[in-house]
Amino acid sequence: GHPVFATLPETVFETMSRLARQHDAINLGQGFPDGQGPDDVRAAAARALDSVSNQYPPMMGLPSLRTAIAAHYRHHQGLDLDPEREVMVTSGATEALAGALMALIRPGDEVVLFEPMYDAYLPLVRRAGGVPRFVTLKPPHFRIEEAALAEAFSERTRIVLLNNPLNPSATVFGLDDLALLAAFCRRFDAVAICDEVWEHVIFDGRRHLPLIALPGMRERTVKIGSAGKIFSLTGWKVGFVMAAEPLMRVLSRAHQFLTFTTPPNLQEAVAYGLAKDDRYFEDIRTGLARSRDRLAAGLSEIGFTVLPSAGTYFLTVDIAGLAADDVAFCRRIVSEHGVAAIPVSAFYEGGSVRNLARFCFAKTDATLDAAVERLAGLF
Amino acid sequence: GHPVFATLPETVFETMSRLARQHDAINLGQGFPDGQGPDDVRAAAARALDSVSNQYPPMMGLPSLRTAIAAHYRHHQGLDLDPEREVMVTSGATEALAGALMALIRPGDEVVLFEPMYDAYLPLVRRAGGVPRFVTLKPPHFRIEEAALAEAFSERTRIVLLNNPLNPSATVFGLDDLALLAAFCRRFDAVAICDEVWEHVIFDGRRHLPLIALPGMRERTVKIGSAGKIFSLTGWKVGFVMAAEPLMRVLSRAHQFLTFTTPPNLQEAVAYGLAKDDRYFEDIRTGLARSRDRLAAGLSEIGFTVLPSAGTYFLTVDIAGLAADDVAFCRRIVSEHGVAAIPVSAFYEGGSVRNLARFCFAKTDATLDAAVERLAGLF
Ligand SMILES: CSCCC(=O)C(=O)O
Ligand SMILES: CSCCC(=O)C(=O)O
Repeated sequence: GHPVFATLPETVFETMSRLARQHDAINLGQGFPDGQGPDDVRAAAARALDSVSNQYPPMMGLPSLRTAIAAHYRHHQGLDLDPEREVMVTSGATEALAGALMALIRPGDEVVLFEPMYDAYLPLVRRAGGVPRFVTLKPPHFRIEEAALAEAFSERTRIVLLNNPLNPSATVFGLDDLALLAAFCRRFDAVAICDEVWEHVIFDGRRHLPLIALPGMRERTVKIGSAGKIFSLTGWKVGFVMAAEPLMRVLSRAHQFLTFTTPPNLQEAVAYGLAKDDRYFEDIRTGLARSRDRLAAGLSEIGFTVLPSAGTYFLTVDIAGLAADDVAFCRRIVSEHGVAAIPVSAFYEGGSVRNLARFCFAKTDATLDAAVERLAGLF
Repeated sequence: GHPVFATLPETVFETMSRLARQHDAINLGQGFPDGQGPDDVRAAAARALDSVSNQYPPMMGLPSLRTAIAAHYRHHQGLDLDPEREVMVTSGATEALAGALMALIRPGDEVVLFEPMYDAYLPLVRRAGGVPRFVTLKPPHFRIEEAALAEAFSERTRIVLLNNPLNPSATVFGLDDLALLAAFCRRFDAVAICDEVWEHVIFDGRRHLPLIALPGMRERTVKIGSAGKIFSLTGWKVGFVMAAEPLMRVLSRAHQFLTFTTPPNLQEAVAYGLAKDDRYFEDIRTGLARSRDRLAAGLSEIGFTVLPSAGTYFLTVDIAGLAADDVAFCRRIVSEHGVAAIPVSAFYEGGSVRNLARFCFAKTDATLDAAVERLAGLF
């Protein structure tokens, strides 16, 4: 048998955050923003503790939130979702992902994964009995290539799991990449699980293309979103799943036994937040792009080679020459320089890439500047 | 392979709550109380939206809550738990249960389950690759018997999953039952997962005995609790897991990839609530015992045979003669009489028991009286 979880390490995000606390370091590791998120959304959550029932909400989510999700994605991404049948609320995107994999994978099914990949993906696939097939995306462009897909897909492919925008490489996949992937999904009758938690965090005028909007993908895509990421409230753990009804029916069966529901007051506040005007989302993007530029400039100035970041909260730097590998680098900077980062090898099975470290720039200018100042001691 | 979730029905609790809404019925089905829970705990949750970070809390839970959990169980149940290493916060007891099963079962492991059983248990065991072995508890006393355990346990037994107090039969297991079970766990080197979400809801001067307190069980028991049940805030989805460190390490690996964390403001409010004095918990019990007696008396008076209830929010009635079976009975009373209940066959694999319906009495007197009045039309 596979005692999958027994042999796993602690997730790197938790480890680095704990080290950051221990060393009183500036935490640019785990992806969360400085600050408390929007005041009005938090106030809505406080009000809803009185105005909405604190007992079990419907298992699929509060009707108000499901309606708001459908309206939000209609407005921002042109999607046409039935809030009753095609939208489900989960306890964070992590639960959405775990549930989708548990619901859709039969032991022995092949699952196509793209490296670099978020550290939860592979253990969940293995625990569900799936057989991973890796597509390694190549720096610096991390494009999806036909030859790599042709090698990974087979008659046994059941699922493909994509993160777009891609953490940690901060890649935003364009129509070319997605159309290629969609063609393989159709040809091999695979279901795509698309983790789009960074969909609003895209810079330089690019637009997010939801995989579910591509031809032939409406019926075979599970789209996952995150209110925590959208509203800079990462602790709230309110996630969304969107899928056509036949898929959603199966997903809901996993959800009902994984968490069943999500706190109603937070759901109600997220419903309120999703209706914010375009300006709100634009301002978040503009602010984060400024932060990205500030950190990138600061790190370049002191001597780092900084890789491009087209979305997410993250940028990566090449640490070659600064430490034996990325893990050693991250341990060194948290303990000796008081800055936490994430070693990018954690996103590769077998750690084939060992020269990159990831920094989170979703922080105040003061925090970013202080981190750069501390890191200057490295050079 | 086993596409476990694809072939499952919707959980009976959700189905009956939806029917209740559709028929504008009094909902005595799904187990949640009337009202909004304690005002001061909700106020603490509102305050914590400002006073505590809304970003990711530690994966194991806020230190303040873990400390409060350890103190609570020391005071109420004499347990000695290390809040740092032996306590974890989950997104409800459902996540705790799903995580424990996913973490501890290797495909092919045998899992001993007691019927009647909560409807999530069997699908989760199957999805984890476990092979269920059933012990059917016999009415009216639902005692654990040595012969039944001897039949169910084997060298392949890895896990035994017990709900104490037991929903829906409202049984509170005593030292005899638990000592017998503990002896089998020790003999077969099995881990016990004990779902004790009803631990505070015990009547008539009985006391809850945590399985983990029995000789030899400290190192082999996973104890699960629920703030939603303790504080009548069922929507909050804040659960607890307690286990010795070697077990907890494995459980945390599943948790980190199932939900990762639980909303910090709700955690902080639960920490506040767990410190309430004995009077608070005693008053809840007294109030619920009164409600139990009121509903039992009302249902008996109109003609039902009411079975005893020693704990939980529930009592069951015999519906023989009133409908073809419990499912027909529950469909009839929700649509024709405007009262929702739960068919007890949902708690048995194969539905071997078909003559019982479960009512939730955690409601105001007015609600209970109105339900009885509506049901009087049956006789
Ligand atoms: C669950 S903590 C990790 C948060 C995140 O998305 C990241 O840092 O990559
Ligand atoms: C998750 S809804 C079910 C609540 C409950 O414990 C019950 O009604 O038995």
